[in-house]
Amino acid sequence: MTETTIRPIVEAFYKASAERDIATALSYIDDNVDWLVQGPIDVFAFFGQRRGKAAVMEGYREIGRRLDITGYDVESLLVDGDGAAALIRLTAIVVATGKVMSVRTAQFSRFRNGKIVEMRAVVDSYDMAEQALGRPLDVNASDVVLVPAS
Amino acid sequence: MTETTIRPIVEAFYKASAERDIATALSYIDDNVDWLVQGPIDVFAFFGQRRGKAAVMEGYREIGRRLDITGYDVESLLVDGDGAAALIRLTAIVVATGKVMSVRTAQFSRFRNGKIVEMRAVVDSYDMAEQALGRPLDVNASDVVLVPAS
Repeated sequence: MTETTIRPIVEAFYKASAERDIATALSYIDDNVDWLVQGPIDVFAFFGQRRGKAAVMEGYREIGRRLDITGYDVESLLVDGDGAAALIRLTAIVVATGKVMSVRTAQFSRFRNGKIVEMRAVVDSYDMAEQALGRPLDVNASDVVLVPAS
Repeated sequence: MTETTIRPIVEAFYKASAERDIATALSYIDDNVDWLVQGPIDVFAFFGQRRGKAAVMEGYREIGRRLDITGYDVESLLVDGDGAAALIRLTAIVVATGKVMSVRTAQFSRFRNGKIVEMRAVVDSYDMAEQALGRPLDVNASDVVLVPAS
């Protein structure tokens, strides 16, 4: 499949995602998709590896239970061959706490026959965890090995 | 600048980056670059916003002082128009602790006249922080609002 044929499909998937039209977004996901959102699954249950569309649908449902997504801004969208890459600014209210979070996520996907067969997502997960918890994580003076020697 | 002209430049930048040939990588960065690595700057000093090539060079030096990068695997590389997107698996030894870390990062860049004028990077920062610190972050039972109700 060439780039010219997948671009409208990619754009339709992200248009549906931005509009939180999950049914339409899911129609672009292959039954046997290999889906991975890098991040701490002990903090966010919707992170991690999911095999198959049913598992991805459950992930979407889990996100819906936890987050009220108020903004989904596709800041960059690239299409190259059978692949797409999107940089997204996601804004949401954490249902359990009422706290607002705003994080960046990157999604790299591969399409076959008009459907996503592979997804790899990276989230600024530390920032997301702090915003969702509503408090800083416990990094302190003993951890200065990572900050400037000054 | 069309896609056909920037692809070799993008590939050369990532080849240099993968080989930790910082001088060559820097030669593809515009003097007035707008550079942002999303993530906790209180944990990793090389995260955050940097304006101009000199500031980016200082960021590279800071990374070099903190991390001994042992692997830089470009898993996906897309070029579209004046933009590029790369999904990278980075492996490094934390200099201060000797701990090995392996994280995914996504880089979205924009090129003008053969140089990077804009860079937006997202890192799985929670995972990176835990690996660098060598301990789990303090998310506990009181935070179960974020995990499944079960």
